[in-house]
Amino acid sequence: MENLCRDLDKVRKISPLVHNITNYVVMNNTANALLAIGASPVMAHSVDEVADMASIASSLVLNIGTLEESWVDAMLIAAEAAHKAGIPVIFDPVGAGATPYRSETCRRMLEECRPSVIRGNASEIMALLNVSSRTKGVDSTASSDSAVASAKELASATGAVVVISGAVDYVTDGSRLESVTNGHPMMSKVTGMGCTATAVTGAFAAVNNDLCEASLHAMTVMGVAGEIAARNAKGPGSLQMEFLDALYCLDETLLRKHVRP
Amino acid sequence: MENLCRDLDKVRKISPLVHNITNYVVMNNTANALLAIGASPVMAHSVDEVADMASIASSLVLNIGTLEESWVDAMLIAAEAAHKAGIPVIFDPVGAGATPYRSETCRRMLEECRPSVIRGNASEIMALLNVSSRTKGVDSTASSDSAVASAKELASATGAVVVISGAVDYVTDGSRLESVTNGHPMMSKVTGMGCTATAVTGAFAAVNNDLCEASLHAMTVMGVAGEIAARNAKGPGSLQMEFLDALYCLDETLLRKHVRP
Amino acid sequence: MENLCRDLDKVRKISPLVHNITNYVVMNNTANALLAIGASPVMAHSVDEVADMASIASSLVLNIGTLEESWVDAMLIAAEAAHKAGIPVIFDPVGAGATPYRSETCRRMLEECRPSVIRGNASEIMALLNVSSRTKGVDSTASSDSAVASAKELASATGAVVVISGAVDYVTDGSRLESVTNGHPMMSKVTGMGCTATAVTGAFAAVNNDLCEASLHAMTVMGVAGEIAARNAKGPGSLQMEFLDALYCLDETLLRKHVRP
Repeated sequence: MENLCRDLDKVRKISPLVHNITNYVVMNNTANALLAIGASPVMAHSVDEVADMASIASSLVLNIGTLEESWVDAMLIAAEAAHKAGIPVIFDPVGAGATPYRSETCRRMLEECRPSVIRGNASEIMALLNVSSRTKGVDSTASSDSAVASAKELASATGAVVVISGAVDYVTDGSRLESVTNGHPMMSKVTGMGCTATAVTGAFAAVNNDLCEASLHAMTVMGVAGEIAARNAKGPGSLQMEFLDALYCLDETLLRKHVRP
Repeated sequence: MENLCRDLDKVRKISPLVHNITNYVVMNNTANALLAIGASPVMAHSVDEVADMASIASSLVLNIGTLEESWVDAMLIAAEAAHKAGIPVIFDPVGAGATPYRSETCRRMLEECRPSVIRGNASEIMALLNVSSRTKGVDSTASSDSAVASAKELASATGAVVVISGAVDYVTDGSRLESVTNGHPMMSKVTGMGCTATAVTGAFAAVNNDLCEASLHAMTVMGVAGEIAARNAKGPGSLQMEFLDALYCLDETLLRKHVRP
Repeated sequence: MENLCRDLDKVRKISPLVHNITNYVVMNNTANALLAIGASPVMAHSVDEVADMASIASSLVLNIGTLEESWVDAMLIAAEAAHKAGIPVIFDPVGAGATPYRSETCRRMLEECRPSVIRGNASEIMALLNVSSRTKGVDSTASSDSAVASAKELASATGAVVVISGAVDYVTDGSRLESVTNGHPMMSKVTGMGCTATAVTGAFAAVNNDLCEASLHAMTVMGVAGEIAARNAKGPGSLQMEFLDALYCLDETLLRKHVRP
């Protein structure tokens, strides 16, 4: 808890620049979530500038939600610049397994981008190991528990911290396994909550070299903010609004009250 | 009313995958509206995957709001896959008639995509028949009543169900003509409400082969949710939030209370 | 004040078509803000239609937030059509100075697009004069006061009205200098508030040939709506919603109450 509060303070003081190459659906949400938590978001995807942008950023977030060839090219270039600059690369394999193109792109991302953290739902994480499985769109159809073994294997194989989000979130580096039980079922009715978790992971990874802990902090903050938001929400519309307010208002008192040990 | 409640239940139980190739402005809203009503949205536009994505979807929604050549190519490929898979194709001719390129694209969409349902405002529907008419941006300048004749003609010519949204919404297959009087004027002050109606039509068309009835159900749900939302809204900002909450909370009781026969 | 109320009325009566070629992050917000204030937004970026769209619009808004080559091409074509049609071109140099590509694009925009109004934060305006300065992402790191000299110089060099937004907003044509002290610090925690100011400037520039006054009106309306919104906001989520409601509800009484002379 001390480390979480310390890192939240750091995000707000340093306001790390998080470079996002992400999908059209969630850009607005993720930019707003990063601002609300205290980070400084930038969205830039042109091959003409992603290397320069990544090199002045504190972390790089790659999300293939609405992928197309020129965006994948940009992600590969940005990842190379990020590794050169020594900043973490967070990868969100949205819809992995849904189409052959998406699976093939995921394979390229794992091999050529060498992500530092991978965050997906259970279906996506399992699909990264088994591209023949078909996910139903971008929602999770497998339980997060059943994917823990896949996550550990994926972490060991890639060297990345792997995060599965779901009713219970799991964070693993292949040996350590942490879980977060905070959150609310209605969060799955707001588009881009998973993508937002990935972006927020970018903010915490920018201030903590222990990427397992950084990911745990990000998922905890997401879960707590979601719970606080749900108390005042009548549906997914108000949940989304309350969620940004909750991220903005989070402090040690609220965290101590809500985080389940 | 029985059929509407049955189909709303079906959407929530089956959670049909609705594949959207739509415009940048509304992607977030339409994804959220589809989630709120119980469907499962996916946005994917790359020519490298749209055929695969459409083939696992339950309906395909095509919207030319922020069109460009590669997106039109993707729409044509996706529509072919949709027809092969036997799923309905819903077409939203945003801004039809505003520019020659937009009119020409609409012509191609009608000929090559052979939509199952077309939903537009009065100007757009009239422009589909008469591409020489200029619409003022993407808002409706013609009344929906005056466009009913055009809608019927368009339906007969294309074999599609045609929906005109406006103060009164009309649904026709060329012979049948149904109308929906639910709704609220402030809905026109929220961007993408029309596009959302098209996406929600995709959800209902996925669970009901009678596309005239499915379209009627979608427009009724939009109108009722808009009315409920407007009661609590101080302006278009809160209307948009309340609208998603209302979609999420809709049930038989609320429908029976609000639907005007 | 009389002129501001007159122009707000004009925007609502004429509902000018504002053609936006803007970034993915803010399209939804800016479209909603334009609708809320009474204007008619259209987003269109294809080289196949931007000239036609600009020629039927009342103003053109160019924003390089998520720039890429084909979008820059479209901006240049649209600007030429706008100048031919005699409508104002409003330019938002998002992130100017952050990368060489962004700086180079800004130079091209100044030379080839010849904007009528330029609105940016202090860093961006200073970067337009000195492309070697590095901005931190798209947020302002310089104070708006320190950039006033740069703004005057830029206005004189380009012939454009230059607007710096910040805690105090400045509007200058090189000789006149006006300021707006309305606004609220939390507005900087909502993504795209600057881009929204640029779009709203497009609405006011469409109804007033005195572009210095039009810009002043736009910044005043932004600041007042932000203040009204902040009174009811618990955080940036509710601020964004309340802001659109406030734009929609603005009238002479509210303006007289809030505008600081």
